[in-house]
Amino acid sequence: MFKEKLILTGHIIDSLTLPKTLDTIMEQGGDFKIEELNVGKLKTDKSSAIIEVTSDDEKVFNRILDEVTDYGAEILEDKEVQLIESAKDKTVPDNFYSTTNYNTKVKYNDTWLPIENIEMDCVIVVDTDNMKAECKPLNVVKKGEKVVVGRAGVKVEPLERSRGKAEFEFMNSEASAEKPTQTIIHKIAKEMKEIKDKGGKIVVVGGPAVIHTGCSKVLASLIREGYVDKIFAGNALATHDIENALYGTSLGVDIESGELVAHGHKNHISAINTINKAGSIKEAVDQGILTSGVMYECIKNDAPYVLAGSIRDDGPLPDVITDSQVAQQRMREEVQDVDMVIMIATLLHSVATGNLIPARVKSVCVDISNASVTKLSDRGSAQVISVVTDIGSFLPILKNELEKLEEE
Amino acid sequence: MFKEKLILTGHIIDSLTLPKTLDTIMEQGGDFKIEELNVGKLKTDKSSAIIEVTSDDEKVFNRILDEVTDYGAEILEDKEVQLIESAKDKTVPDNFYSTTNYNTKVKYNDTWLPIENIEMDCVIVVDTDNMKAECKPLNVVKKGEKVVVGRAGVKVEPLERSRGKAEFEFMNSEASAEKPTQTIIHKIAKEMKEIKDKGGKIVVVGGPAVIHTGCSKVLASLIREGYVDKIFAGNALATHDIENALYGTSLGVDIESGELVAHGHKNHISAINTINKAGSIKEAVDQGILTSGVMYECIKNDAPYVLAGSIRDDGPLPDVITDSQVAQQRMREEVQDVDMVIMIATLLHSVATGNLIPARVKSVCVDISNASVTKLSDRGSAQVISVVTDIGSFLPILKNELEKLEEE
Amino acid sequence: MFKEKLILTGHIIDSLTLPKTLDTIMEQGGDFKIEELNVGKLKTDKSSAIIEVTSDDEKVFNRILDEVTDYGAEILEDKEVQLIESAKDKTVPDNFYSTTNYNTKVKYNDTWLPIENIEMDCVIVVDTDNMKAECKPLNVVKKGEKVVVGRAGVKVEPLERSRGKAEFEFMNSEASAEKPTQTIIHKIAKEMKEIKDKGGKIVVVGGPAVIHTGCSKVLASLIREGYVDKIFAGNALATHDIENALYGTSLGVDIESGELVAHGHKNHISAINTINKAGSIKEAVDQGILTSGVMYECIKNDAPYVLAGSIRDDGPLPDVITDSQVAQQRMREEVQDVDMVIMIATLLHSVATGNLIPARVKSVCVDISNASVTKLSDRGSAQVISVVTDIGSFLPILKNELEKLEEE
Amino acid sequence: MFKEKLILTGHIIDSLTLPKTLDTIMEQGGDFKIEELNVGKLKTDKSSAIIEVTSDDEKVFNRILDEVTDYGAEILEDKEVQLIESAKDKTVPDNFYSTTNYNTKVKYNDTWLPIENIEMDCVIVVDTDNMKAECKPLNVVKKGEKVVVGRAGVKVEPLERSRGKAEFEFMNSEASAEKPTQTIIHKIAKEMKEIKDKGGKIVVVGGPAVIHTGCSKVLASLIREGYVDKIFAGNALATHDIENALYGTSLGVDIESGELVAHGHKNHISAINTINKAGSIKEAVDQGILTSGVMYECIKNDAPYVLAGSIRDDGPLPDVITDSQVAQQRMREEVQDVDMVIMIATLLHSVATGNLIPARVKSVCVDISNASVTKLSDRGSAQVISVVTDIGSFLPILKNELEKLEEE
Repeated sequence: MFKEKLILTGHIIDSLTLPKTLDTIMEQGGDFKIEELNVGKLKTDKSSAIIEVTSDDEKVFNRILDEVTDYGAEILEDKEVQLIESAKDKTVPDNFYSTTNYNTKVKYNDTWLPIENIEMDCVIVVDTDNMKAECKPLNVVKKGEKVVVGRAGVKVEPLERSRGKAEFEFMNSEASAEKPTQTIIHKIAKEMKEIKDKGGKIVVVGGPAVIHTGCSKVLASLIREGYVDKIFAGNALATHDIENALYGTSLGVDIESGELVAHGHKNHISAINTINKAGSIKEAVDQGILTSGVMYECIKNDAPYVLAGSIRDDGPLPDVITDSQVAQQRMREEVQDVDMVIMIATLLHSVATGNLIPARVKSVCVDISNASVTKLSDRGSAQVISVVTDIGSFLPILKNELEKLEEE
Repeated sequence: MFKEKLILTGHIIDSLTLPKTLDTIMEQGGDFKIEELNVGKLKTDKSSAIIEVTSDDEKVFNRILDEVTDYGAEILEDKEVQLIESAKDKTVPDNFYSTTNYNTKVKYNDTWLPIENIEMDCVIVVDTDNMKAECKPLNVVKKGEKVVVGRAGVKVEPLERSRGKAEFEFMNSEASAEKPTQTIIHKIAKEMKEIKDKGGKIVVVGGPAVIHTGCSKVLASLIREGYVDKIFAGNALATHDIENALYGTSLGVDIESGELVAHGHKNHISAINTINKAGSIKEAVDQGILTSGVMYECIKNDAPYVLAGSIRDDGPLPDVITDSQVAQQRMREEVQDVDMVIMIATLLHSVATGNLIPARVKSVCVDISNASVTKLSDRGSAQVISVVTDIGSFLPILKNELEKLEEE
Repeated sequence: MFKEKLILTGHIIDSLTLPKTLDTIMEQGGDFKIEELNVGKLKTDKSSAIIEVTSDDEKVFNRILDEVTDYGAEILEDKEVQLIESAKDKTVPDNFYSTTNYNTKVKYNDTWLPIENIEMDCVIVVDTDNMKAECKPLNVVKKGEKVVVGRAGVKVEPLERSRGKAEFEFMNSEASAEKPTQTIIHKIAKEMKEIKDKGGKIVVVGGPAVIHTGCSKVLASLIREGYVDKIFAGNALATHDIENALYGTSLGVDIESGELVAHGHKNHISAINTINKAGSIKEAVDQGILTSGVMYECIKNDAPYVLAGSIRDDGPLPDVITDSQVAQQRMREEVQDVDMVIMIATLLHSVATGNLIPARVKSVCVDISNASVTKLSDRGSAQVISVVTDIGSFLPILKNELEKLEEE
Repeated sequence: MFKEKLILTGHIIDSLTLPKTLDTIMEQGGDFKIEELNVGKLKTDKSSAIIEVTSDDEKVFNRILDEVTDYGAEILEDKEVQLIESAKDKTVPDNFYSTTNYNTKVKYNDTWLPIENIEMDCVIVVDTDNMKAECKPLNVVKKGEKVVVGRAGVKVEPLERSRGKAEFEFMNSEASAEKPTQTIIHKIAKEMKEIKDKGGKIVVVGGPAVIHTGCSKVLASLIREGYVDKIFAGNALATHDIENALYGTSLGVDIESGELVAHGHKNHISAINTINKAGSIKEAVDQGILTSGVMYECIKNDAPYVLAGSIRDDGPLPDVITDSQVAQQRMREEVQDVDMVIMIATLLHSVATGNLIPARVKSVCVDISNASVTKLSDRGSAQVISVVTDIGSFLPILKNELEKLEEE
């Protein structure tokens, strides 16, 4: 019979730590006994519980412990973290601990080491000499690094639900196009304004539909006005933005008239050709060739951008990082000081960004398709707030709401 | 060997009458010989062609004639229409002629009788005493009425493509969310303004998402300002509009805050209860109970509305026509003097309306789903202009564009 | 200061009654004190809690009570139900109690009266002479009937989560096309087999896509083999099924070749014409005119069907109930003895059915669109299991899985 | 006044060359005079036309010529191609000729040079010494290479519509889920069988949904049986396929039970770790570690695969080409001898492949979303046949149809 005692503390009932723990034990087919349960009598009080979990199937038992510790349950008997050295570059021991995107600590040498830059689906490497714990993607682990295995000595801190009504969280329900669009966008605008006022940083992750739907100018103005601090995109958004700035078209469609220009497909190749001639986007701006648009404003306002290459790229532009691992690493670096991520009309870049950000970062995902939004949450970015709407109207309305807030 | 000569006249090459005719003959496995072809040398000239079509398979031959006459080809030898009396109410002879939604004439007693109120998938009944031809749905045909059978003596006039660029038609391509939203809406607004200025009529066909997405006020103002002359909807749009006017919610979601009100689902039943107490929507307006919203403006501005019942209705409101055939007939009557139909977020009412309108009526279909728009055109309303966008932003932007046009 | 004591009993922690209750109080801005909490120590034990909820805002207070009683919390002080007579047909007092789709009882004259045939968004009428309580839609309430108002004396019993793994419930998560299709269908087949073996009843609610995608034969065979006991549909499914049986086409598309038959649109009108001549579907079967398909099997196997009319109907068939309220009432009657509802490719009929069924009925919703499935759950049918897949392959695979189960 | 004579030859009426040419001239605002028109009298005859196009606006005039030459119209006066040297690596002269995906020739030194490996949105480089013309993406053009500019001396040959009914093309209409699924898949199977029998090659381009929906085994068997010759995919398909082979899960969901395994997300990292330890997929197969699945069959059957990296990759596997331009070039090479492309549930890889293939390659695009399919054709791959269905049932039904064809 396998047996372990768990301790749960905090707002364990309404933040669902206790229900989820009991649920998991039952679903997996284990048994439990609640040994202690102190429930805060008032809504400001914290609660705690001690639960004994048992099973006669080791596999089941381990699954239960794996899962409940992700919800914030701790194994009562306070063990140290277990470390095994990597035997070969890019590999870890089989029993490696796989991270969540919640704040995590590991206990080593009687000290709880915090893990900064936590990211899901990574491993934890402990530098025992310097008493530091780091979250690392598998493929950068080096031979000889000490990797955390098992779950002993690892403590996960799930986000607590805020007490009282949290304006921004209200929308965190199932995605649907049948919700009051302007109200939702108003709340996103308010959150952006608050972050900006506090000196926080916002990154927009965008697909080419931003340009196709005629929103190059609007996004450009949000960068200029300091609401958007960084851009993550691909070759397509940048190319069509430049095509739009140079020729007034996006993939050959005239943005003003909505008509397909004859041989308009050629325009995006011409745009790349123009930047290739100048040498880079920055040089095109410096030489007075590129004078408006999203990429122009990035250059002018020193807003960092990561243009990640993909196999469907024409060109690509010289600024595009064609190696996907190098691009991912650049995104990882840029994401560290970010408070909010707004993902617009790109599943690829959104999932990539969602993989990289810790749970504390506020995330908004805007797409016209329910399915895209569902895919994001299927992949673990459950904290995402979803807006099912048309990009071509989302950005203009967002700008409008920000302007109204400015005036107040 | 079956053989018939066809005559084609008009802009038969660029309006595709000739290519489609040849195409059909080949696809169906028939043979043709072009006996004459006079092509207009200049773009303002008309052309004509005489084509002999042959096949040794009678079924194939008839299929070809059926199809090419729908594109505007006429059988050269000028026959009279063939009539057979209906043997029983709601039934027609097996070989009945099934209508398209294009202008159609039938030749009887050496006279071409025009068919007014043409509608697809109906039959033609000729009143030989009064020399009148009428388009009738199957289920209103009476025993003894003379029904057109076969295709002899029937002439269909497909819409010709306009010479030069037609602004409104530019968008008549495949639906996609990746088009410049504001540009498209601007053109719809322009068309609406032109129709209004000419004294034309516009009907909005709407689903409850119009209210759920917070657009009750906007649609109400379009009625007040005379841009929308009639409303086709169901119990849901009307109920939620009234719920919104009375309690500020739509299916229990507060439109201002976006939050689900506790027991908010009760609000729509309360709204119906309130109207039931008053007796009807009009009485609720007259008694000062209902003072804003879409239905209020319909009453105040004498804008006719048809509220068609469906099996998912709670209530329904006393104004709802619960019999679907009676409701369809009311829609048929109201559609006769209409110049433009704007269908928003309702597949059921849109398909119903699409079935009723002749091809000359300008149609706009707005939905967040590509699939909905595709379904409409799969069902024969090919002249529909599709906008894939979010309702919650479509109507505010449309209103905005109309205001800008007013100022010009 | 408003104050009330609540009692919660059962598996209140893992069935989420307690967490949801606390959550609601906090979200709405009330306060609570947990006066007693007895938690079952083992997973088979029941728990109970007494919670005092307070607020100084009456509106907030009432909202909290409204909501928590829906989750199964009871007001401790055991009051009798409050009744007010309806002042006018089709109307109820303003403060009427609006039903959920969970089992519900009302306390009258010291007796808990069960409400059979519970249905959401209705009212409760008590026949005090005969000590009976009934759930009624608003529009059938008669003047003078005694209607429950407020929430006193009303007890709602939410479904408890099953202990241990429930095969059928495993899928009750967010809809997604990225799930193992055959596995999901296998489990549905298993559930159907179990219900059939126990003598239970299954209704299929279907849209015309069932026929368009070529599944007429498969659904027909499921009726013949007793897996499907009843059909809810519209004119379209029945018409295209008959069109398919008579001409091999569905809306003019040949099901065997996938090609559009020339003038094929006429076929569905011919199908209606044929049935109109015979008098009804049954008469067409009796006269040997209709010899296969879904409707044929319904007649041959005495499987009840409800064909509900809608405004987009051509014809309609003589068997169609054109009045939506009459059709809804027929569906209400047929649904009473049903154990499982399988809703396929029809939002209209699915929402209508979802409105009528109590929470205990197992429901499966199959559609190719995430959005349709989301709409169903937005409207309160949260117990629905969703399958995002293609109809044209769902039914053949389902049949195949049932055959495999038969062989075992 | 700008003026040019065009010559059109072939099946110019029913293959739409003539109508499209006249249409373009009128839409762009030019004028035309038909100088000669010889129409084939019988359906096997070819036709020809000489048209004089005029405009007083140079820009309009050039647009017309650009567009009509893409449809197959040739400028009558037979000019030589114009060449300008590239001034800098990765750049071309501003007036460069941009390719279509149709067969194309250029006239140099009185000789028509064919361009092999034609691909859309590229440029043409002529090697005048060796009398060879090549199609090159912009970014591989070298300084000094002679690039075709303008449209003189370039001849495009659009695909002619096949005479008679072409089984495979019948479906080339708008995507819709409401089509007979099994019929469509049957025709795809027939086409695959024919290609296989002729020794042709088929590439499957797949997304991870192939594995998530439980189809790893089916796709693996298609490779083993020689129906699939090559695989284009990303890290995700390969990783989840290996995860499935090693642990029976795909992104942590057990394929047999449909349940989420506890800590299942870790499985795909474990799968990568396992391959990293082995060194590569091939080594894992050779060492007996990987013994089934799609990637296993690729190794065992020498089926080439291109795994293109993307920024959302965990790992990635050592076989993944992380540089997107290198991956694209590998795909370009592999696509040259391919006769059919089946793109399943991946927009990224499908668009990338669609960009690379000439129009003659038969293409099938399978996705559950209408919008994805629309996006493909918006981007120019108009020859794609679209199937809107569920992946999890498409592949099993396809395999079943192939087996039936084998038996015949």
